[in-house]
Amino acid sequence: MSSESELLRGLEPGAVPGGLGIGDDAACLPDGTLITVDALVSGIHFEAEADPAAVADKLLRVNLSDIAAMGGRPTYALLTLAVAAGFDAAGFLAALQASCRAFDVVLVGGDTVSAPVTMLSLTLLGTSGKHVARRDAAAEGDVVFVTGPLGGSLRHGRHLRPEPRLEEGRWLVGMGIRCLMDLSDGLAAGLHAIATASAVGLDCNGPAVPLHDDTYGADPAERLEAAFSDGEDFELLGTAPPALWASLKEGIYPLTAIGVITAGSEVRWRDTEGGEWRQLEATGFDHSW
Amino acid sequence: MSSESELLRGLEPGAVPGGLGIGDDAACLPDGTLITVDALVSGIHFEAEADPAAVADKLLRVNLSDIAAMGGRPTYALLTLAVAAGFDAAGFLAALQASCRAFDVVLVGGDTVSAPVTMLSLTLLGTSGKHVARRDAAAEGDVVFVTGPLGGSLRHGRHLRPEPRLEEGRWLVGMGIRCLMDLSDGLAAGLHAIATASAVGLDCNGPAVPLHDDTYGADPAERLEAAFSDGEDFELLGTAPPALWASLKEGIYPLTAIGVITAGSEVRWRDTEGGEWRQLEATGFDHSW
Repeated sequence: MSSESELLRGLEPGAVPGGLGIGDDAACLPDGTLITVDALVSGIHFEAEADPAAVADKLLRVNLSDIAAMGGRPTYALLTLAVAAGFDAAGFLAALQASCRAFDVVLVGGDTVSAPVTMLSLTLLGTSGKHVARRDAAAEGDVVFVTGPLGGSLRHGRHLRPEPRLEEGRWLVGMGIRCLMDLSDGLAAGLHAIATASAVGLDCNGPAVPLHDDTYGADPAERLEAAFSDGEDFELLGTAPPALWASLKEGIYPLTAIGVITAGSEVRWRDTEGGEWRQLEATGFDHSW
Repeated sequence: MSSESELLRGLEPGAVPGGLGIGDDAACLPDGTLITVDALVSGIHFEAEADPAAVADKLLRVNLSDIAAMGGRPTYALLTLAVAAGFDAAGFLAALQASCRAFDVVLVGGDTVSAPVTMLSLTLLGTSGKHVARRDAAAEGDVVFVTGPLGGSLRHGRHLRPEPRLEEGRWLVGMGIRCLMDLSDGLAAGLHAIATASAVGLDCNGPAVPLHDDTYGADPAERLEAAFSDGEDFELLGTAPPALWASLKEGIYPLTAIGVITAGSEVRWRDTEGGEWRQLEATGFDHSW
């Protein structure tokens, strides 16, 4: 779930009695049901001429990533299909159903309306693991880690078919991880989101950040900037107490330590080992609710 | 939930193992959770200059009506807010939260995106009663009834603030009613929806249909046509076995018998007591999934 504006500040975060609400990747209801919604708008999030099957697949995958970030398992989906003339709605729906089947998700209903511009909104439900990972659970001394290389997602169209880290999310929660989110909006935004939600500081060691082969050019600074800002990586960002980190490192999924949670509230980075710590700007989008 | 097109025919109705899916007012998950989604688009479902608070209230109420039609109690909501320039999103959100509070609904999350046209989609969850009322449960000999007068909803802006029949829906299910839907799309569409879903015929006695004071003009035929076609009444339409109907008639909510379920598949009406039975056209929208 996310927003692109300031207007949601007035909404009370976590206003679910016994659950977890606004302010995380998905809401968690008191019975452990996870629920999230994400929308794509023609001309903004996809080209009007885009393959409807690719749009359908992406719409599901960005929602799946939200469930992954809570350590959950996706279950059911509902679609809102606001269709403009010329959009291949039947093709879109068939593709969405196929994508749902591939992830064991059942499309249980929806609403279709006419609109001047095609807008697609998917609500996705899930079941939670033994607990729910959240953004506000980082503690001083925790190791900050990511599940894969970052940056350059736009370069080879990787952003069109993000790989939701569902197995990784469930495994991490099963191992005891309590602080997790997905990196839809770029690493810098993610680091700030965890620091703000958890009321902690964070030092990110630039040279440790794993860079995707798709990051542009050979200049290391430029590649790191892509990792901080590009977004749409959909890797998971989490934190682990040092003892837990020691066992995670030996686990079945590759994780990379990129920093540490600190006292205070500053989010800092350095571009070389032993270099000077600098404030990290919250580039990209920071638009979660 | 509803659609305005034919494109959803390919979707498998009821494809929820152990639950109830596409084809009813709301989906019902195996654990009894009800879930529905409805969308409003600027310029189509509301004027661009409309009061955002009125739009918010309507968006919630049409969704509440879907939960009412299943005999359920609303619980949680998620919003997709696709906002065009000039739309008072903050005012809309504050109003939606107020409307939610008035119905004991908690807004747990959402997604806000920029869009060339404002589109609002609300997902609403609910808990079901001792069973779930559905459209396909009518049986030959059942009395067909409605919860209130129909027609003319556009005349005094009543369609802007529909009254979801939540208490009536819960009471009817508690009394044993198994076949129920809401009349968002007009009585004729509703009668056809129940007959088709239940694979039965239906005779509707025109003079028995309760007509709202808002129905235009003095001509009885015109008033009845308004009840059949206007839509946006959001009264409940249901069927009851005759023995159950006898006790319902004495109940706390006023119900009006308007017809009977028949063998076969014809949906018929007559305009006078003892008049000739004629085929009823499925006017209005029949766009459920």
